Amino acid sequence: MSNTFGNILKLTTFGESHGTAIGGVLDGCPAGISIDFEAVQHELDRRKPGQSKVVTQRKESDTVRFLSGIFEGKTTGMPIGFIIENEHQKSSDYDHLKDVFRPSHADFTYQQKYGIRDHKGGGRSSARETACRVVGGAIAKQMIPNIKITAYTSSVGNLHLDKSYQEFDFTTIEKNTVRCPDIKMAQQFENLILATKKQGNSVGGIITCVVQNMPMGLGEPVFNKLHAALGSAMLSINAVKGFEYGSGFEGATMLGTQHNDRFNEDGTTKTNFSGGIQGGISNGMDIYFRVAFKPVATLLQEQEFLTTSGNIITQQNKGRHDACVVPRAVPIVEAMTALVLADFNLLYKTQKTI
Amino acid sequence: MSNTFGNILKLTTFGESHGTAIGGVLDGCPAGISIDFEAVQHELDRRKPGQSKVVTQRKESDTVRFLSGIFEGKTTGMPIGFIIENEHQKSSDYDHLKDVFRPSHADFTYQQKYGIRDHKGGGRSSARETACRVVGGAIAKQMIPNIKITAYTSSVGNLHLDKSYQEFDFTTIEKNTVRCPDIKMAQQFENLILATKKQGNSVGGIITCVVQNMPMGLGEPVFNKLHAALGSAMLSINAVKGFEYGSGFEGATMLGTQHNDRFNEDGTTKTNFSGGIQGGISNGMDIYFRVAFKPVATLLQEQEFLTTSGNIITQQNKGRHDACVVPRAVPIVEAMTALVLADFNLLYKTQKTI
Amino acid sequence: MSNTFGNILKLTTFGESHGTAIGGVLDGCPAGISIDFEAVQHELDRRKPGQSKVVTQRKESDTVRFLSGIFEGKTTGMPIGFIIENEHQKSSDYDHLKDVFRPSHADFTYQQKYGIRDHKGGGRSSARETACRVVGGAIAKQMIPNIKITAYTSSVGNLHLDKSYQEFDFTTIEKNTVRCPDIKMAQQFENLILATKKQGNSVGGIITCVVQNMPMGLGEPVFNKLHAALGSAMLSINAVKGFEYGSGFEGATMLGTQHNDRFNEDGTTKTNFSGGIQGGISNGMDIYFRVAFKPVATLLQEQEFLTTSGNIITQQNKGRHDACVVPRAVPIVEAMTALVLADFNLLYKTQKTI
Amino acid sequence: MSNTFGNILKLTTFGESHGTAIGGVLDGCPAGISIDFEAVQHELDRRKPGQSKVVTQRKESDTVRFLSGIFEGKTTGMPIGFIIENEHQKSSDYDHLKDVFRPSHADFTYQQKYGIRDHKGGGRSSARETACRVVGGAIAKQMIPNIKITAYTSSVGNLHLDKSYQEFDFTTIEKNTVRCPDIKMAQQFENLILATKKQGNSVGGIITCVVQNMPMGLGEPVFNKLHAALGSAMLSINAVKGFEYGSGFEGATMLGTQHNDRFNEDGTTKTNFSGGIQGGISNGMDIYFRVAFKPVATLLQEQEFLTTSGNIITQQNKGRHDACVVPRAVPIVEAMTALVLADFNLLYKTQKTI
Repeated sequence: MSNTFGNILKLTTFGESHGTAIGGVLDGCPAGISIDFEAVQHELDRRKPGQSKVVTQRKESDTVRFLSGIFEGKTTGMPIGFIIENEHQKSSDYDHLKDVFRPSHADFTYQQKYGIRDHKGGGRSSARETACRVVGGAIAKQMIPNIKITAYTSSVGNLHLDKSYQEFDFTTIEKNTVRCPDIKMAQQFENLILATKKQGNSVGGIITCVVQNMPMGLGEPVFNKLHAALGSAMLSINAVKGFEYGSGFEGATMLGTQHNDRFNEDGTTKTNFSGGIQGGISNGMDIYFRVAFKPVATLLQEQEFLTTSGNIITQQNKGRHDACVVPRAVPIVEAMTALVLADFNLLYKTQKTI
Repeated sequence: MSNTFGNILKLTTFGESHGTAIGGVLDGCPAGISIDFEAVQHELDRRKPGQSKVVTQRKESDTVRFLSGIFEGKTTGMPIGFIIENEHQKSSDYDHLKDVFRPSHADFTYQQKYGIRDHKGGGRSSARETACRVVGGAIAKQMIPNIKITAYTSSVGNLHLDKSYQEFDFTTIEKNTVRCPDIKMAQQFENLILATKKQGNSVGGIITCVVQNMPMGLGEPVFNKLHAALGSAMLSINAVKGFEYGSGFEGATMLGTQHNDRFNEDGTTKTNFSGGIQGGISNGMDIYFRVAFKPVATLLQEQEFLTTSGNIITQQNKGRHDACVVPRAVPIVEAMTALVLADFNLLYKTQKTI
Repeated sequence: MSNTFGNILKLTTFGESHGTAIGGVLDGCPAGISIDFEAVQHELDRRKPGQSKVVTQRKESDTVRFLSGIFEGKTTGMPIGFIIENEHQKSSDYDHLKDVFRPSHADFTYQQKYGIRDHKGGGRSSARETACRVVGGAIAKQMIPNIKITAYTSSVGNLHLDKSYQEFDFTTIEKNTVRCPDIKMAQQFENLILATKKQGNSVGGIITCVVQNMPMGLGEPVFNKLHAALGSAMLSINAVKGFEYGSGFEGATMLGTQHNDRFNEDGTTKTNFSGGIQGGISNGMDIYFRVAFKPVATLLQEQEFLTTSGNIITQQNKGRHDACVVPRAVPIVEAMTALVLADFNLLYKTQKTI
Repeated sequence: MSNTFGNILKLTTFGESHGTAIGGVLDGCPAGISIDFEAVQHELDRRKPGQSKVVTQRKESDTVRFLSGIFEGKTTGMPIGFIIENEHQKSSDYDHLKDVFRPSHADFTYQQKYGIRDHKGGGRSSARETACRVVGGAIAKQMIPNIKITAYTSSVGNLHLDKSYQEFDFTTIEKNTVRCPDIKMAQQFENLILATKKQGNSVGGIITCVVQNMPMGLGEPVFNKLHAALGSAMLSINAVKGFEYGSGFEGATMLGTQHNDRFNEDGTTKTNFSGGIQGGISNGMDIYFRVAFKPVATLLQEQEFLTTSGNIITQQNKGRHDACVVPRAVPIVEAMTALVLADFNLLYKTQKTI
């Protein structure tokens, strides 16, 4: 249950940060879809380490190798197995973590739960696992080519965009290191991240995701509401602390007369506080939501660690880390969104009257 | 998939707002648990309409009838079937809704998706369905008697509590109509709701939920992180727009040096920005989270409706409705929390080494 | 997991033999299907006790009450909840079973597994639960109206039909008490059952099931092969000991040259040892399979029981029982077949290329 | 759904017969189990081609490479990813199958369902996929070390063992090419298979499987009965046509007085027609069942094929094939049995009273 995501389109992932390889199986993808392999690798490149000065400098080419389920370039309806070999596996780099628990990391909880853990780079708890989600999401995007999913960095620390998504030119997003659609704010975000990095500190941020050209009817009425699935998908990403869609937490301060979206005669609405979802089901308007990321726990400065024998020691992390995870998380947010939407699109097919 | 919740402990619900009955099946509850039936009914009474002047005056006794799975007062390991008969079924009350879509309701999306809908009081999309969750949750609470789950209203409209949960006496919560642990703010919340009601309007609010005496080790590493499951559970409740746990959205503004929770030697932490969950797994500290509710869409004043033939008409809702859903949602939030925790507690049993 | 059946179309059942009621929830049924309620009740009547002299004389009208998911005669896509009240609940009838385990019953294993059991009439382990499957199956049949599912009694004890299904007139089946399409053999089956009954004994038998007018493409390649799902469905019925499809166990004695089904130019085959399924997927030919039922364990004669305190005592069962379960199991076999096929039909919709 | 097996312990497999690699993910295995890698490879060697003169001479070393979930020799509770590279991938060997459907193969049904298929060696429909099940099953065996699972060939064509399993010395099984515990019959089986092979024909057979030292309490009451899960597991293996347990089809001819297993005072039974399972739950007695395999469809002689353009042509298969699949299927039957039992053992842990 823990390592499989989805209802009909199911992504199962495996692998640890510094193990032999990470990989996954995407099951439930219909047959006959021509796979654009470059598009898949492009998504991985957006997530990979070392792509710019604001991200971790760990060396990984993150080259995906597909093993099954694709024949002469097309999906066959069979499970799509894939692996990404870990190139950086020097286990001695992590010897200093063997007998300590880092604060606000998963080290302590894994040890308590399982009685054993792969301490190298966080093992399974590392965000390296999300590379497999990006592969799955890249294929999911190709299953729903008409739907346009765009995520971007909307805040870093106390800096935040104060325009709504409609005011931005999304083509700007990939033109800066921080994936922000506002070129001026992008520079400020970058400066803040670099300054934070220089101090060996980390900083949180928020990603906004927008889904345009949404069909009506995706989502299930009760427990599997579309926004509940999106929320669960986002909250499953490392470092995420919150999710809101449409009016979100701001909506809790509003009156019904303000919040209700008045209809146009064609069924569209004049406002969209609903965020494209009513009663758990998409209404054809844009879906938009925000995802809050905490500052990552790994700092390149001295911190107090708990040892496995119950002492507090002061130690410094080694290695290469992101000072702000948000820019690299943008493609992950998009990937998880695509997996949810492609899955619910398949689910919807089962509900149409025979 | 839509009407079943949980992994091992599974709650399946059925029923429409003004149909014959609503009900459910709770499967996966271990054998041998003595059921406190009064405690179950007490939870239902906390959610039921007509309990105070701030909630809807619809008449429903909400008496649950258990049909199976309990023998001589104890669970048998067999599925627990139950029903709650709908007492208020005058279908003519809803004739005015037959051919219109109310704004920001599920009317329109249900019709688009299914081509048919039970228009009486919202049918399946009504929050009446949550009574079944409260029944399931009340039994779930009895499965994990040591864990203490407390929810309360922490904001209504622009009014909000500004203390942390540790500063409150939780016994105050059930002593006021709005379920707020601060007696002064409770009065202000009540006043705001009554004023809003008088205007035929509605208002949003926020519920805070705290889980104390949590065991370590609950939660799954990757897609089924404990907070992802809690988030999904909360987002599946009618009118919810957002979920955050621990530091939440505020955490996105922080630096790692502020946010990291320093360890004590016994494995507890000095601060708890993590919200009791690290790497998706509980660490034994309190879990706390916040759930944002929009103002309910049903207003007792004139509004624009879309007719099924594509015209905009102005009409007024009839009937009885909540001006603020938050006070009655408190037991629902607790119920869904209990279902998640009892389920993950069972799941954890499968992961302990043989 | 135990009380829910199906992938997309999911039937969850609950209830004990002499509890308040049995019932279920059918989830995943598409919207817009006009339900023929008489057809549902007709299927229940085929299964119900007291219908003829060869079956148990327990008094139950088995009247189903639908509670949700159907609006103005049509399915709405919402879960269909239903209950059947138990009319025969005199619990004192079963006091003699409270502290004993009957041989070859589930009494002993339930007690070992759960440490508690409802001893009245077998509780949840009674075949009474299958009435709910018949309700679900009756609706499933209406979801796939073009597919013709026919089951019949093909053997009782050492008596067996020796013709293939193509040689029978299926309209004969419901015209005799034992549901056999051969009128002469029907009389012999009846005589054997009545003689067995007179002796307070029971006898086993076999049901053959034939699916005609099958579409191609139902079934999943690897673990969820169509015949694996059918086999699991049949083996889940009380008293079933074996399942074979197509050539079955006889096929294990054959050579490839005998067994391979030669093609016609239109894709049909000259023989059908494959039983309509190749590689787990239907090929459009008739599906046929056989289900073996043991003699039911309840005998109306003295038997050795094990007491809960570990002694062997000799005692006689009371009450009313079937001497041969097979005639009443015919509609159950059909119901489970319909549930599998309607479910796989929905599943297939997700696999068609977008 | 199609490519994942199990409830708590879940095996997901991928890969085609002549693709890059086959592999899988075993999720849900508890942490802390020391993996005996030689034992895993040993099971693969029992299944692999080329191991003796009675099996296909295809060249594959079937070396498994574990990628994750095992740290310093022990399971970590994380998903265990693994691959087996396909060494024999000369695709031109299969050009003659590109535009034809072989009789009684999955060629036709895959093409009808998916509109595309990997024709090389049957692609996903090849029994090569079962190597991944053997890997999963080998680990599952190590999760339940006290349970002894033994399968053997009990019939080939019209030849069959006529003793019950208790009369055999199981150490004989691996000492002959056909995996038969009776040394004389083993020779006859081998002779029949070699003679069949010489004629370019194939022959069916039966595997008996015995589970000794079974704990009580495994299995779920209604739809997930232990024998239903075992039956589904067996029927999912390529070429299987039937499954029976305990008295099986023979039981259908018996009277209750013959079939009921009389108790001993310790809860064991004097006979075991129940096959170790009562009411779907294990009673601690040996489980035994029989699995019928058809003659494999691939013959090394001329046969009629259907072309994709609708003509019947006469053609001869090339390549290397098993004349009788049963000897190599013995470890597969054991592997699937181990997966079911290890899974139900975990499931049982969730049902014990808290």
